[in-house]
Amino acid sequence: MQLARVIGDVVATRKDENLAGIKLLVVQPLTPERQPAGRPLVVADSVSAGVGEEVFFVRGKEASFPFYPVEAPVDASIVGIVDHWNVEKG
Amino acid sequence: MQLARVIGDVVATRKDENLAGIKLLVVQPLTPERQPAGRPLVVADSVSAGVGEEVFFVRGKEASFPFYPVEAPVDASIVGIVDHWNVEKG
Amino acid sequence: MQLARVIGDVVATRKDENLAGIKLLVVQPLTPERQPAGRPLVVADSVSAGVGEEVFFVRGKEASFPFYPVEAPVDASIVGIVDHWNVEKG
Amino acid sequence: MQLARVIGDVVATRKDENLAGIKLLVVQPLTPERQPAGRPLVVADSVSAGVGEEVFFVRGKEASFPFYPVEAPVDASIVGIVDHWNVEKG
Amino acid sequence: MQLARVIGDVVATRKDENLAGIKLLVVQPLTPERQPAGRPLVVADSVSAGVGEEVFFVRGKEASFPFYPVEAPVDASIVGIVDHWNVEKG
Repeated sequence: MQLARVIGDVVATRKDENLAGIKLLVVQPLTPERQPAGRPLVVADSVSAGVGEEVFFVRGKEASFPFYPVEAPVDASIVGIVDHWNVEKG
Repeated sequence: MQLARVIGDVVATRKDENLAGIKLLVVQPLTPERQPAGRPLVVADSVSAGVGEEVFFVRGKEASFPFYPVEAPVDASIVGIVDHWNVEKG
Repeated sequence: MQLARVIGDVVATRKDENLAGIKLLVVQPLTPERQPAGRPLVVADSVSAGVGEEVFFVRGKEASFPFYPVEAPVDASIVGIVDHWNVEKG
Repeated sequence: MQLARVIGDVVATRKDENLAGIKLLVVQPLTPERQPAGRPLVVADSVSAGVGEEVFFVRGKEASFPFYPVEAPVDASIVGIVDHWNVEKG
Repeated sequence: MQLARVIGDVVATRKDENLAGIKLLVVQPLTPERQPAGRPLVVADSVSAGVGEEVFFVRGKEASFPFYPVEAPVDASIVGIVDHWNVEKG
């Protein structure tokens, strides 16, 4: 999973029917030092995250687990809102 | 998922039988600022997208979900046409 | 999926039994402008492609679909031979 | 799988219900020479690893195997604590 | 799949129970010209490969196929030992 900050959202009217009702957000992956880590991407939201919140997201088939029994065609989903993290000094 | 623009299509007569009837497009992934983000790739289309449209696509096993019950051997599919997106200023 | 050119083959006598009879080729991924895009890789062939042909291949679990009901341990397979592609000028 | 060192942990109260009780750690992937190899990431822990330990982790759908029958939405999990490794001189 | 050379092994006593008895090797991915291609990684071995041998390995869920019915939490496995490969001059 990767740490990220929610930075926006995506609006799409014409889409796969199994995406109906799923909120699509744009996140910026972060390093533990809160620096940008790679490019922003579009993720599905299963935990009611909002813009500005720090979250972690999962990629791959597992990203569709939160939407079962619907087989949502998503490859990245926010699965938690971070309270805080602790990383030892390198 | 990633934002992208449809930039072309692919024609293939000899192909896996489970690809029959599936439209294959070439997309250029985009950053939220509409800059190219990585290389173009070939995707399956499940939402009748056309060249020039802004879309988002999904990678991996989930890319085959829109074609069930056919087990289409695809690893990237357009699953939505974007109306617009909103991203906070960095 | 990615566009590629077939550039060689791999011969392996000792291998997983579910690879028996599956042809293994080496492909060079291509950009739409036919420039090399990343490193060559080994792929399974399900469409009788030959060295020099332009193809597209799929990665991941879906790469094993063409070999069902055998559960072939492959993560990349050629699934189509390209007639041609069309990409708008950037 | 990749070698890594555990460098921290993540605390998240609001998260997918199938993550309940799963410890989330931050790991730094390592080369065999113990140099950092890419960015730190968040992983689930199935072997009671602690900060400072050398481990190996698995990515993808397989990362959820240790948590069956719960379908945990995780894409990276520590599956072993390393005693030692041996690599020939290059 | 990728070509690689086996360069070492990993010893881990505390690990996921479904890894019991599975040999873990370190491989260096190779280009067709036998140059290093990216970083070494840890793979499971299903074909009794040894240090110094040239092999090809598979990534992802398919890497667990050789160990069925055990659901081994592995994301990369050697599935063949290479006799030789042929690649046309670029």
